[in-house]
Amino acid sequence: MFSQQNSKIKIGILGGGQLGRMMIIEGRNFPILFYVLGNKDEPACQVADFCFSEEEYKKMIDEVDVVTFEFEHVNDMALQYAEDREKLLPRINSVELKRERWKEKKYLKDHGFPVPRFEIAEGGEEALKILKESFNNIGVIKQSTNGYDGKGQYFIKGNPQDYSFLKENNCKFVVEEYVNFDFETSIIAVRKRRDFVAYTPTFNYNENGILIYNYGPYYDDRLEDIAKKLTESLNYVGTIGIEFFIRNNEILINEFAPRVHNTGHYTLDGTFTSQFEQHIRAITDLPLGDTSLLTPSGMVNVIGKSNVPLEALRLGKLYWYGKNEVRKRRKMGHINVRGEDLGDVREKIDNLLKLIYPQGLDL
Amino acid sequence: MFSQQNSKIKIGILGGGQLGRMMIIEGRNFPILFYVLGNKDEPACQVADFCFSEEEYKKMIDEVDVVTFEFEHVNDMALQYAEDREKLLPRINSVELKRERWKEKKYLKDHGFPVPRFEIAEGGEEALKILKESFNNIGVIKQSTNGYDGKGQYFIKGNPQDYSFLKENNCKFVVEEYVNFDFETSIIAVRKRRDFVAYTPTFNYNENGILIYNYGPYYDDRLEDIAKKLTESLNYVGTIGIEFFIRNNEILINEFAPRVHNTGHYTLDGTFTSQFEQHIRAITDLPLGDTSLLTPSGMVNVIGKSNVPLEALRLGKLYWYGKNEVRKRRKMGHINVRGEDLGDVREKIDNLLKLIYPQGLDL
Repeated sequence: MFSQQNSKIKIGILGGGQLGRMMIIEGRNFPILFYVLGNKDEPACQVADFCFSEEEYKKMIDEVDVVTFEFEHVNDMALQYAEDREKLLPRINSVELKRERWKEKKYLKDHGFPVPRFEIAEGGEEALKILKESFNNIGVIKQSTNGYDGKGQYFIKGNPQDYSFLKENNCKFVVEEYVNFDFETSIIAVRKRRDFVAYTPTFNYNENGILIYNYGPYYDDRLEDIAKKLTESLNYVGTIGIEFFIRNNEILINEFAPRVHNTGHYTLDGTFTSQFEQHIRAITDLPLGDTSLLTPSGMVNVIGKSNVPLEALRLGKLYWYGKNEVRKRRKMGHINVRGEDLGDVREKIDNLLKLIYPQGLDL
Repeated sequence: MFSQQNSKIKIGILGGGQLGRMMIIEGRNFPILFYVLGNKDEPACQVADFCFSEEEYKKMIDEVDVVTFEFEHVNDMALQYAEDREKLLPRINSVELKRERWKEKKYLKDHGFPVPRFEIAEGGEEALKILKESFNNIGVIKQSTNGYDGKGQYFIKGNPQDYSFLKENNCKFVVEEYVNFDFETSIIAVRKRRDFVAYTPTFNYNENGILIYNYGPYYDDRLEDIAKKLTESLNYVGTIGIEFFIRNNEILINEFAPRVHNTGHYTLDGTFTSQFEQHIRAITDLPLGDTSLLTPSGMVNVIGKSNVPLEALRLGKLYWYGKNEVRKRRKMGHINVRGEDLGDVREKIDNLLKLIYPQGLDL
């Protein structure tokens, strides 16, 4: 590789969102052509070399050398088609665990990873019964499918009668203890074959299931150990994000995302090699890059806003995703910041939150 | 700005080379559309939103909000057309000084900036005469026009007879003392209106007039003072690169480039805001970003090579320009490195040089 145009590697990305967009922008300095399965006006298609519609997935996958995804809830047929042709990275085993939440939980527990106490329910009625009998009506009922950004999650604190509508629902659920955590954290790691690297963890702040901001460094070697074991156990190739609760210094895995992750956006500016470039390196079998944290760093999401005040650009670096429509709870962009120390970073984040959300968050 | 697609800023770039390419990639996270005046297969056109041929310069300039250039030796008519419509940034006064070397030298001297001793000659015969009478036949005769990357420069060390072919040349020349410098350095600075920021200078290593590698930090406040005064004197808008000789702790300006500069490529990874993003910020009147050096950094140019060994990717980050033809002395890409200290950076540079040029440089 790295020779002339006619020998460019062709990467196909399933999904047209911002994660694919940033993957392409960060991969632009390699001799790579990017193909995206998504709509023409989506963030990733805007910067891709070629854009294919959902129905054209076979054509796209046939044309490229390697297929990856920017979001795990994409076209199952495309994922399977790419897997069958041995082009999918990370492989489908990681995605399958994410298709249904109970599978992810069970996998983690069965492999000895620390997770909150949970039980699996075959419908809303059973879920409420488990909540009562095993969790004293205080816990979280999580829909097993299609759950992300806080969708399909019910936090119940002694008032199960308010959630009796769940009885009508025959889906599978995970019923989980309510984790009264001290803080949330996450780690971004990258693996290919026998190579493994990890970034410095961050403190994360979520609201209504959506990441609002994060910052670091948070130093805790246990997270990297878990990331190493988990990626080995999955025989994982690519970038992964793993979210944790910390409760009385105890670590619990909340969930993992088999892809680049919102809590790793700070790596675009706070580290030498971003999580996006690393993903490209991993799936094309290039050597992995340096992950050292170069400066205390942070990130603020721009959610449900059509623009940001100019003043915000004094505080950080804007990543605007170019989405064609603003919606409530929709991530429109993010701003990365850096500082001399964590206090400096937090102050910049606070100032950005005031600038972006003068009336407070609306989620 | 920063709202939806229909309000994207339109930037026109004159020149299709790698500097324009990196400007676009680094500007992609802003809501901007990029127009390039260049050939379809050139590095910048490959990543632009729209590409225009040389003859279409009026059409392109009419369509965009602001025009900049990635190289000062571009279509004069296009520069003038953009200037006349008050769209050109930086303005034409800086480019005019670069069209003829004697104008740049005279401007710097007249405005009190430190430059090597020089005289202006109205042809090769006069140049050789000046060289003899004022410089004792030891000096540099530089063609006044079209000189970059070492082209049209003659280093004469007591053997003027070898250069008698210059007598046939009626062009203007600058005859300059031979500066026996201790080292070369440069500074990248950015200005708009009353805002000015500068990056940490670097040590530069040139051979046959081409930058081979550079690294930093080199701390010397005098360089920033000069950059501030020079950009003020030019009423400059955008990123500028200024090259210096250091001789017995004396500073001499070698030349400046009214654009992003090869010695500033390390800012892509070693600082929070790259020289390319800063240029975009400056010409669109956005607040300038943080220029702090986050880690000792360096850069190695890949010159005249169709590829780089994979091993190089372990040492740094590749920027491959996608040029369609390899030529001797042609910059095909570069690799950025970082290290714990200057020694670590230099070691990585040495290892990269061995990997990229196993038979040594061929310039």
